[in-house]
Amino acid sequence: MAEKINSRTYRFTRDIFINSYATVTGPKEYAGPIGAHFDYHFPDNLNGEASWEKSEQKLQSYALELALAKGNLEAEDLDFFLGGDLLNQIIATSFTARGLNAPFLGLYGACSTLCEGLFLAAALLDNHIGAHIAVNASSHHDSVERQLRYPTEMGVQRLMSAQWTATAAGSYILSPKPSPWQITAAVPGRVVDWGIADNNDLGSAMAPAACDTIAAFLKDNQDSPLPDLIISGDLGVLGSKICAKLLLNQGYDIEKIYADCGCLLYDPAQDTHSGGSGAGCSAAVLGAYILPKIKAGELNKVLVVATGALLSPTSTQQGETIPSIAHGILIERNSSESR
Amino acid sequence: MAEKINSRTYRFTRDIFINSYATVTGPKEYAGPIGAHFDYHFPDNLNGEASWEKSEQKLQSYALELALAKGNLEAEDLDFFLGGDLLNQIIATSFTARGLNAPFLGLYGACSTLCEGLFLAAALLDNHIGAHIAVNASSHHDSVERQLRYPTEMGVQRLMSAQWTATAAGSYILSPKPSPWQITAAVPGRVVDWGIADNNDLGSAMAPAACDTIAAFLKDNQDSPLPDLIISGDLGVLGSKICAKLLLNQGYDIEKIYADCGCLLYDPAQDTHSGGSGAGCSAAVLGAYILPKIKAGELNKVLVVATGALLSPTSTQQGETIPSIAHGILIERNSSESR
Repeated sequence: MAEKINSRTYRFTRDIFINSYATVTGPKEYAGPIGAHFDYHFPDNLNGEASWEKSEQKLQSYALELALAKGNLEAEDLDFFLGGDLLNQIIATSFTARGLNAPFLGLYGACSTLCEGLFLAAALLDNHIGAHIAVNASSHHDSVERQLRYPTEMGVQRLMSAQWTATAAGSYILSPKPSPWQITAAVPGRVVDWGIADNNDLGSAMAPAACDTIAAFLKDNQDSPLPDLIISGDLGVLGSKICAKLLLNQGYDIEKIYADCGCLLYDPAQDTHSGGSGAGCSAAVLGAYILPKIKAGELNKVLVVATGALLSPTSTQQGETIPSIAHGILIERNSSESR
Repeated sequence: MAEKINSRTYRFTRDIFINSYATVTGPKEYAGPIGAHFDYHFPDNLNGEASWEKSEQKLQSYALELALAKGNLEAEDLDFFLGGDLLNQIIATSFTARGLNAPFLGLYGACSTLCEGLFLAAALLDNHIGAHIAVNASSHHDSVERQLRYPTEMGVQRLMSAQWTATAAGSYILSPKPSPWQITAAVPGRVVDWGIADNNDLGSAMAPAACDTIAAFLKDNQDSPLPDLIISGDLGVLGSKICAKLLLNQGYDIEKIYADCGCLLYDPAQDTHSGGSGAGCSAAVLGAYILPKIKAGELNKVLVVATGALLSPTSTQQGETIPSIAHGILIERNSSESR
């Protein structure tokens, strides 16, 4: 029986943990500042597959296999597999599910998918539905760019506000078995659309949604100590500045504890312009950068806010603006399992 | 705390009900054998909108507004909005969510989306997460056909195994408040792929997945009375025959209690070939045909098994077969609220 705290925070009653996880990326992400922390990386974006879409599916299945192995688990131990990606009809995830016996719940939350999945997995476990639930999210630079923007081979010049869709997948296995990483609460997001229509500036479109969710969390939990870190999913350089400014306008000065996964994944010298993006961005940075710091005691309480732009090429072509969403997950350090 | 029954059935502990619902369709569905039972129908597939995609979004928002009104509820009463559709990046659903203050959880289960959403909504409510949760699913013949097959204007001759994607949406509002329709259990589906690659014969591709879920339910619940009706989502004429045959091969003779939403939506004279399909098919037939019969006492226990083909045009073009899934929801008559 989860407990609702004020307007939109749900605190889980059972102790739910990230039992195991793994991250797999492409070569550009491996070459970035946190590249050494990924569990595995492909030598190139195809990794020997016949298409970028098949390569993205392999990112997902490798991540899941590694997460299972790191947790001394078998695929047969999974009671559910949840996940999504940015491809039409989420084929990278569905074709990964094909290799499993576990029931599959497909999600579409654009780049917010990881936190949507972590919320649902924790809520199911909190209700004793399943003992081990895997959550996957991925994106692939080349499969996404050609689907959502231009054929990759055209080499269209990118605007400075554009972000670089990450070639990355993360897989997280949740269970009630204690680990250093406890998921204690969640703030599910609502759709916010401030009228931005430029699909080369998704960070600006998503910033108000991130602000909405972070402000809801801070207001709901004003009697609790602040998190050590609030990290958004993929607002990038431009969007994260807007998000911090919007929060400041509401009286929340979080600058000292705020970061964005899209700003951590690449080095500015890698020419990604406004930083990283994609459902795989937060899925890779959470495992490679944040969870180790929690285990080491450098961080004790982290609000992860994965952000999603719910547009499609069709909606853009039909003149629509960009509805956005952000789901927050609170991860707290379980000191008895950390060292 | 939900209870797991044998391999894959989950029984909810709280009493969870379909508190209100509404169905909206296009003119062809209205002209069909159960057309008089839909809450509203569009005069044509555009309904005055500038595109089929915008028309599909209106199907969804009309269905939700009607479901709220029929239940004497306001949009502000919703704690969550769950749903999905077949469009790339589920824009019909995301743009419906834009008009709401409730948190949004986007789903992609192809035509199984309704039952995926009903399962998750019931599981959340069972864990006291939310008091009213809306679940939407839709499809639109013209937006889907041009996206998944050929430009609609080409008028490509359809194979006899092909089904007609329904222009339809259903919206279901779940809560613990008693109604005639109690959701007592669910059987989440796993991905099954028997190697069918023909996207003009999705019924055959999905039949093994439907069989897998129905057989799991029958085996898990062999000590309980059989449902009065087991109804699959959109296997159509061909797929539903295959499903019944596959179950018979496993020793389950369900012919007398088995039906398929895709076979009920249209009259054979409407030239739909193998029947109806689409995420809106089961979403419309459940509300228009099944729930009234439960309320009237003609049916007491119904297993609804929405079926989804998890392909995309890209996966088909890349030579892939069709992974399929089927999620089952058990709806039982609450006689104290029926008359």
